[in-house]
Amino acid sequence: MPKHSSIGIFDSGVGGLTVFREIARALPHHSLIYLGDSARVPYGTKSAETVTRYSLQAAAHLIDRGIGMLVIACNTATAAALPALQASLTIPVIGVVEPGARAAVARTRGRVGVIATEGTVRSQAYTKAIRLIDPKIEVIESAAPLFVSLAEEGWANTHVAREVAEIYLEPLLDANIDTLVLGCTHYPILRGTIEQVTGDKIAIVDSAETTASFVKSAVRHKPSGTPKHQFLVTDAEERFRRIASDFLETEIEHLELVTL
Amino acid sequence: MPKHSSIGIFDSGVGGLTVFREIARALPHHSLIYLGDSARVPYGTKSAETVTRYSLQAAAHLIDRGIGMLVIACNTATAAALPALQASLTIPVIGVVEPGARAAVARTRGRVGVIATEGTVRSQAYTKAIRLIDPKIEVIESAAPLFVSLAEEGWANTHVAREVAEIYLEPLLDANIDTLVLGCTHYPILRGTIEQVTGDKIAIVDSAETTASFVKSAVRHKPSGTPKHQFLVTDAEERFRRIASDFLETEIEHLELVTL
Repeated sequence: MPKHSSIGIFDSGVGGLTVFREIARALPHHSLIYLGDSARVPYGTKSAETVTRYSLQAAAHLIDRGIGMLVIACNTATAAALPALQASLTIPVIGVVEPGARAAVARTRGRVGVIATEGTVRSQAYTKAIRLIDPKIEVIESAAPLFVSLAEEGWANTHVAREVAEIYLEPLLDANIDTLVLGCTHYPILRGTIEQVTGDKIAIVDSAETTASFVKSAVRHKPSGTPKHQFLVTDAEERFRRIASDFLETEIEHLELVTL
Repeated sequence: MPKHSSIGIFDSGVGGLTVFREIARALPHHSLIYLGDSARVPYGTKSAETVTRYSLQAAAHLIDRGIGMLVIACNTATAAALPALQASLTIPVIGVVEPGARAAVARTRGRVGVIATEGTVRSQAYTKAIRLIDPKIEVIESAAPLFVSLAEEGWANTHVAREVAEIYLEPLLDANIDTLVLGCTHYPILRGTIEQVTGDKIAIVDSAETTASFVKSAVRHKPSGTPKHQFLVTDAEERFRRIASDFLETEIEHLELVTL
């Protein structure tokens, strides 16, 4: 990674902002460029082929802006497109699945639950990544699609969200998981509500946090100059701005509309 | 409309199937082609420019398949793109907003509530259409985005949906509406739950039903031959098939993946 290049962070929309936030905390001196493909969000219900095509377009755009590392801050895109991205790009590409899988293996006593979008669950990306490290671990994956809308509507800490969390988590609690992976970058927004349901006996793996640690360990230099945070979206800037201020707990500057 | 041509029905995804169902009931001898742009769903959070571009591409595809009439079975696409579609196509183009607005005016005693997606509410399409007919009517529009995910997840008749409905409808009930327009084609799936909250004092205008009546009155011929129902999607056929069987209460045949 060249000394002056920034880190590109790509997501289908706003969910990856939880990853952005953790990377900004972990690497406060680095310039970051976030790209949310809000014209084509959500990826979670789309086919792997479509998600791969969109991800390659997004990566090409960020490469043109001179990034030195690419973080795929979307579980669905990581599950579908990471091998294609790593094969076609010459800079390091980091997804959110492997860091989450490693953290789950480090913490579990043998039974891991994963909640994610339909696309990620269908791909069984977490089951494969965890079993590759330790084939003895039991992995139970379950889709929790309503969490995405609840996070984006600002309903993360409502009674409705609590009730939805109880319904989604019941089969995982019944299966006696000891560790729960938040396998969608929207879900950290609902972490408080999820923890009310799981209680303190179950370890939570937040893929935003674990990915940021992974990125930090992969970066070898400390950049000079003032770090800059840029945000690019493919549609609906005002909606992005509103939700981003919720997710990042600060107003964003440098928001630009781009076409992929 | 030529005697042998079919009716095209276009939506961003699965929501327009409620319109399809009502048109199939109203015109059982007509062939229908449904196109769901599932690769780019949802439209409700996208800008008017993007929705117009996508709608023109979808219309061009259906024209190539020889439709004689186009129904825009999506409130967001109607609000954003109907004038552009009517200007660029030579066949009749019918949207869902005008039929709903007419039905609301016919039923109200003066206070109409509208629930819809963020995009439709932002456009104020219903307020404008209703006021054009009768400027004295009060119109209160309110976004109810979670209803879309609830309908698609098959959660329409759950306690969660009931609670969400109570939250979304409270400001409209407080404003003493006498008529409620379901201004998103997903919402008829939740009609039972919504009526539990509104009670029997408030008239419900279901834009799927009213659009089907409007289409029926615009069709002058009775076609010969066996009617055929075709379904086209731009992505994720299996998800479409599953939700469609829920929405239509029957399994669908002739499902085809297309690129726009």
